[in-house]
Amino acid sequence: MSDWSAATVLDRCAELDRFSALPKALERVYLSPQHAAANQAVADWMQGAGLATWVDAAGNQYGRIEGREPGLPALLLGSHLDTVTDAGSYDGMLGVVMAIAVAGRLRERMATMPFALEVVGFSDEEGTRFGKALLGSSAAAGLWDEDWWDLRDRNGVTVHQAFRDFGLDPRRVGEAARQPAELVGYLEAHIEQGPYLEAADASLGYVTSIAGARRFVLSVVGEARHAGGTPYERRRDALVGASRAVTLIEELARAGSCIATVGQITVRPGGVNVVPGRADFSLDLRAEHDEDRDALWDEYERRIGELCAARGLRFEWRESHSAPAMPCARWLSDAVVTGIVATGDPDPMALWSRAGHDGMAIGTVTEIAMLFLRCHDGISHHPGENVREIDVARGLDAFEAAVIAVAEAVDA
Amino acid sequence: MSDWSAATVLDRCAELDRFSALPKALERVYLSPQHAAANQAVADWMQGAGLATWVDAAGNQYGRIEGREPGLPALLLGSHLDTVTDAGSYDGMLGVVMAIAVAGRLRERMATMPFALEVVGFSDEEGTRFGKALLGSSAAAGLWDEDWWDLRDRNGVTVHQAFRDFGLDPRRVGEAARQPAELVGYLEAHIEQGPYLEAADASLGYVTSIAGARRFVLSVVGEARHAGGTPYERRRDALVGASRAVTLIEELARAGSCIATVGQITVRPGGVNVVPGRADFSLDLRAEHDEDRDALWDEYERRIGELCAARGLRFEWRESHSAPAMPCARWLSDAVVTGIVATGDPDPMALWSRAGHDGMAIGTVTEIAMLFLRCHDGISHHPGENVREIDVARGLDAFEAAVIAVAEAVDA
Repeated sequence: MSDWSAATVLDRCAELDRFSALPKALERVYLSPQHAAANQAVADWMQGAGLATWVDAAGNQYGRIEGREPGLPALLLGSHLDTVTDAGSYDGMLGVVMAIAVAGRLRERMATMPFALEVVGFSDEEGTRFGKALLGSSAAAGLWDEDWWDLRDRNGVTVHQAFRDFGLDPRRVGEAARQPAELVGYLEAHIEQGPYLEAADASLGYVTSIAGARRFVLSVVGEARHAGGTPYERRRDALVGASRAVTLIEELARAGSCIATVGQITVRPGGVNVVPGRADFSLDLRAEHDEDRDALWDEYERRIGELCAARGLRFEWRESHSAPAMPCARWLSDAVVTGIVATGDPDPMALWSRAGHDGMAIGTVTEIAMLFLRCHDGISHHPGENVREIDVARGLDAFEAAVIAVAEAVDA
Repeated sequence: MSDWSAATVLDRCAELDRFSALPKALERVYLSPQHAAANQAVADWMQGAGLATWVDAAGNQYGRIEGREPGLPALLLGSHLDTVTDAGSYDGMLGVVMAIAVAGRLRERMATMPFALEVVGFSDEEGTRFGKALLGSSAAAGLWDEDWWDLRDRNGVTVHQAFRDFGLDPRRVGEAARQPAELVGYLEAHIEQGPYLEAADASLGYVTSIAGARRFVLSVVGEARHAGGTPYERRRDALVGASRAVTLIEELARAGSCIATVGQITVRPGGVNVVPGRADFSLDLRAEHDEDRDALWDEYERRIGELCAARGLRFEWRESHSAPAMPCARWLSDAVVTGIVATGDPDPMALWSRAGHDGMAIGTVTEIAMLFLRCHDGISHHPGENVREIDVARGLDAFEAAVIAVAEAVDA
């Protein structure tokens, strides 16, 4: 078994499972000790593929191998190394480990290539720790927002403090920013996280665009009162209001073309015998077209406001994340298609990505394309996440061929 | 101002606010450092009223003053010293502090009384820490259940470990049990925690019975999946199921005579971009008549099961608490009525208690009665909990007169 085989790629994904904050489940969040350990493991593999490695000013792990002359702009390959809570082993990590394998396969050939090759393991894509996604790739895109320093994790630790705890200097975060002239483009391999390739009996597909997500924190504010002594006509139960909002959110999205998810909810004070005085819950909203998504949000805001007002509840919200849809570049997607065709699929499937990806951030600096791999039953963000070895093998072949196709396009 | 005035009582309630686990809100739970500190403050006040003090084998704080001869059975006065999260200052504590004041007022007279007087500050009524209510008063009633040792708080600490951390020997918990022959009865003063006395413009009322509560932990189990990539037809969203259950719970209770409250909910894995795979939520169910309450639970179980099944979700539940309604003893309530009449109210209001009280447990060993005080807007389990000084003054007079009336009844 070579270091650049599908079996090795899957072994390495399994190996990264060890770097988890939870004893019996996978959780690896931005700027955690597990993040540092995963970076180190990835750096070792990068060095084994002949890459020179470094961690940038935002905790992203990089490796680089020069092209036919030193200092050429780089084709950047990669994905992210952070996870959701109770995650699977492939979302993000697979793309990083595959990129290292592709670099290893192309090591000899790099002496003839018209670009350097860089592999990146982005440090934060999921936003699990600070509730704000794409922190790592946003830093790499030069999109860092000074307001983010004050975001807090569930223990009250700010991003600013977490940088220092990780050994990073917050004042130097700007040094993580990549310049357009340094980059040829960005290619990412990722499991589909949806059921469409499997339904079409296809190993691989290419992405036309990444849907933009908007995320909100919604709050319903009522009044905490004793559960026993408070008659219904005196109650302003925040959880009852929030529950009606959650129900409405699903009903309206299901009836249209958008995808809306409430993944978090907390109530306060949270006593078994206290009417909830406040409920805070998240909303994640996606659609192929930004205008459909924005129209649905407008309707949510109006109708949740109405149902709260009817119950004497106050409705508040703030937007925690907003990203427009990010189109993939035609010429880079053509290279991905060439790569998939080389694996024996004459008519590769086109998909739009319902899930967000690092390309949404890094795509503001350089053009992007994505290769999707079939995954089992569309399951992701769950330990049941799975990918077949044959699909990883085809994915590696396609990814390698895509890089060569990009080189041919650059040289043409 | 005497040590036995309403002003002192209110000052002492405010003083107990200092013993809180939260910097800006009141939370004092069973077997916490704050519990120990509150016991100590209460013991000091008890000693100031001439009571000999001790902490029993379950952390309940006691004080005792003898009657006309040593070793007589005791009339027990008291309430509890633990709180919900973000609590008010009076639920429980007011009754303990008032009982001490009444003991202080009767100190000289005790030499003629046909019983000893004991004051108790029960250590756990709310069940905030371990999700099981009445732990302290249940121990005093000899109702301790060996299964309770394994209950865990939110940090995973068991009751057994918490006993040891508090300096108590779990093997000796049986020593906390009171015997019927030791007790004349139990009288408790408490804020109403409801709006009925205020609506009737009355300072005080007496309790006919305490409604029994049943508490459940309900779980809806679906499947955690990526929020972006999972189409609605593939989702089994546990929070959507739980939200429909919460809505149903309120609708059915509101339409009938029961009171049902969902005060806690947690979802897992709890990521902003992950469809919830599991939702756990509490249900607190009360009614004047046990049979109405039990019939409503049967309907909940059936209908929540149906709505979950229709969405591919699994419904699970367990009962965490169950108590039958506890009637107050007529002869002790007559003494309370005599006390209220002595304050100038010729026709004291009778109420049934929607809220649970320590009397539900200690009432299995000795007869009980309760004095309710008007509170502001029915608010309880909330920092806005308030009681007027004039009502406390009348309450102290009524409570003192009630104890004398009990003595007359015993001597009659």
